[in-house]
Amino acid sequence: MAKISIPLYHRLYEDVKEKILHNEYKKNSRLESVRSLAKRLDISTTTVEKAYNQLMVEGFIKSIPRSGYIVMDVHSVEKSQVRSYLDPIDFKQSENNKLTTDLFDIKSYKSTVNKVFNYQSDKLYTSLDPRGEEELREEIRKYILKERDVKCDVNQIIIGPGIQALLNILLSISNKKSVTFLQPEFTKAMHIFRSFNYTLKPRKTTTEIARLKADFLYISPSNIYPTGEILKAQERNKIIKWAQENNSYIIEDDYNFFIRYNSYTVPSIHSYDGGKNVIYIGSFSKTIIPSVRVSYIVLPIPLYNIYKECYSNFSQGVSKLDQLSLGLFMKEGLYQRHVKKLYNMYKEKNSIMINALNRSNKKKKFKFRGTDSNLHVVLDFKNKLSLNSFIRNCNRYYLDYEIIDNSNSVIFPYSGIENSDVSRLIKNLLYNI
Amino acid sequence: MAKISIPLYHRLYEDVKEKILHNEYKKNSRLESVRSLAKRLDISTTTVEKAYNQLMVEGFIKSIPRSGYIVMDVHSVEKSQVRSYLDPIDFKQSENNKLTTDLFDIKSYKSTVNKVFNYQSDKLYTSLDPRGEEELREEIRKYILKERDVKCDVNQIIIGPGIQALLNILLSISNKKSVTFLQPEFTKAMHIFRSFNYTLKPRKTTTEIARLKADFLYISPSNIYPTGEILKAQERNKIIKWAQENNSYIIEDDYNFFIRYNSYTVPSIHSYDGGKNVIYIGSFSKTIIPSVRVSYIVLPIPLYNIYKECYSNFSQGVSKLDQLSLGLFMKEGLYQRHVKKLYNMYKEKNSIMINALNRSNKKKKFKFRGTDSNLHVVLDFKNKLSLNSFIRNCNRYYLDYEIIDNSNSVIFPYSGIENSDVSRLIKNLLYNI
Repeated sequence: MAKISIPLYHRLYEDVKEKILHNEYKKNSRLESVRSLAKRLDISTTTVEKAYNQLMVEGFIKSIPRSGYIVMDVHSVEKSQVRSYLDPIDFKQSENNKLTTDLFDIKSYKSTVNKVFNYQSDKLYTSLDPRGEEELREEIRKYILKERDVKCDVNQIIIGPGIQALLNILLSISNKKSVTFLQPEFTKAMHIFRSFNYTLKPRKTTTEIARLKADFLYISPSNIYPTGEILKAQERNKIIKWAQENNSYIIEDDYNFFIRYNSYTVPSIHSYDGGKNVIYIGSFSKTIIPSVRVSYIVLPIPLYNIYKECYSNFSQGVSKLDQLSLGLFMKEGLYQRHVKKLYNMYKEKNSIMINALNRSNKKKKFKFRGTDSNLHVVLDFKNKLSLNSFIRNCNRYYLDYEIIDNSNSVIFPYSGIENSDVSRLIKNLLYNI
Repeated sequence: MAKISIPLYHRLYEDVKEKILHNEYKKNSRLESVRSLAKRLDISTTTVEKAYNQLMVEGFIKSIPRSGYIVMDVHSVEKSQVRSYLDPIDFKQSENNKLTTDLFDIKSYKSTVNKVFNYQSDKLYTSLDPRGEEELREEIRKYILKERDVKCDVNQIIIGPGIQALLNILLSISNKKSVTFLQPEFTKAMHIFRSFNYTLKPRKTTTEIARLKADFLYISPSNIYPTGEILKAQERNKIIKWAQENNSYIIEDDYNFFIRYNSYTVPSIHSYDGGKNVIYIGSFSKTIIPSVRVSYIVLPIPLYNIYKECYSNFSQGVSKLDQLSLGLFMKEGLYQRHVKKLYNMYKEKNSIMINALNRSNKKKKFKFRGTDSNLHVVLDFKNKLSLNSFIRNCNRYYLDYEIIDNSNSVIFPYSGIENSDVSRLIKNLLYNI
């Protein structure tokens, strides 16, 4: 307990403890009796008793009936004095990799949170369902059924604070060894496979994947990183057949499926296969403010049956306030309305970006692609020189970018750039490259 | 994107897709031209173009210049028709294992959350620091320094949504193999060690632990489960010496350190050792409503240096709204005030419980212990018969309990029982045992 002023008994306790630790009171010696010490210090016997009691609880002395308090054998351990130098992490937020404030209506979310406080606060006092609250899981079930044709029981859905948390659960219930994926790797997911000692088998095409054996295929068929391309029907069939024949699981990471600027959204692979060999993973990370960290996984029945036996070993990581708020936000249709609005704003930002890139490319020093989805663009520069100039410019403005290995290409996010700034900024970044 | 009514082009797309999948349109055959189809169906060419475009994006057809649209080789994969029976998880909340609503002042927390919405909402649009927001980490640093004498740099503190999430990070950055702990095991923590293939070495006493080799010792020295006893000074010295000599780490899970009803709180082991061989873990789970899921870990410098190199591989799981709210709650002293109040209420509930147990024990059919800490009690029944009666009664009232292996003892939580109900309920549970 926090104590503002140190009580008398505690000062006495500290004093005696110090003397024991520094061998002034030798082991096995007898402490002054409560009565005598109280009299000598002119304090109450209760105070001395409390101090001695505390010393007993911590094991510095013990009480021997009719003999008094005896000092225990307690050497002071040597405290490590060497203080290693700590080199701090310099974490900076890049302006282009956040969300502009117009992209989320924080007021309606705030009012939903307050509704939970006002009308559902009793639920906040009970412990969390390890799988996530049923209110939210049911909303997710309806949502992915409608939008992604993912058919599942509400029990198969597990909520977690991000994809890493869900992969930690998945890998701990499935005793597997290897994972394949299309390059470039999604580092945050692969990091979890690495920590579980998986063999990683990166491949360039689904044809190569179809020739190998692996327990898992991690893929985003509706939004392949970084260009946002989708997996063609033929390739989808190929990997489903592969999974069925090899008893493998496809982990379908269906992030940002709804962002297609020039085509309709593509059905989930889960809907192709009926969920037998597909583990579906979804996330709210990019559709709600980054404040909210909620992802979900749909377990195929055999994995669900394993999970069922040990689910109480897992703690739920998403706060109940977030879960109930998001559940209500979806139930009232606010989430769906928000996603629709978000899509239109993304589309506007996207087209402003395309125009700005075209205008800044009079000298044809680069090409760009990946503009049918997401809020980043892939720039392919003609040569290293142009790439380096661009990167220097990004660094000058403290902007995020990611170079694609062994190429003159760079991934450039632009979700955090205000529409009114896009044109000027792009001009500056691509000036004189 | 959510579409309320299905647009014309999409119906056309669906129609053509079905025909391709069911081999009505054979592979390599040419589709009707845009112009001809539009005329025949009396729809605009734009609509047909959109449908064909979608089919191209998904890989059902391809466009060959001056030749038109050609059907690709796309077999329909067989959908798994076997629907396994799903046996649902029956998750129930036990009344005695929650928090009574008087134990948390939800109004002051609600107003803090709203302050974050009103004055810090811009921060909600940026992405999360993988380590946790500095505002909160700094408050935690000050808090554990003051209350637990844990001396560390703010950079050494990592926030996560629960102890499991933090252990997942810890084990993935430390390449170790074995863990020891005092029985009974803390299942949720040990589950993570198991999933990382650790060798578990449960022991009964610290003397036994001091005789073995292990990379980690997981322990709660200020609140040993289930009785809430503390590790005596001599034992503390023993395990610190053991860790120093074996190059092992003590993981100090310092949960509920502040709950000591009849003695002063005991210093952290981290403070004994200066943090060289001790990894300190703390949590807000039991001091804030279960709604909020925030735990933290203090990494020793060598582990911090490893983490520093790969921290960007980890996603932060605690929502920023929770982090900023809790940070502000602490900064304004509301958390500290709440913990003080909570302690007094816990103490009251605890003494009501002790009285009720004494009153219901006229026939001396059981003993009880573990009442100096926590909000559960350990009941030691004289025989199996009494134990079984008690359990039957618990089951009748849907109350939680945990039997201690190979004993007539049971752990009974009571945080969720209203003070006014304690006496009657205990009487009923222990009636006629």
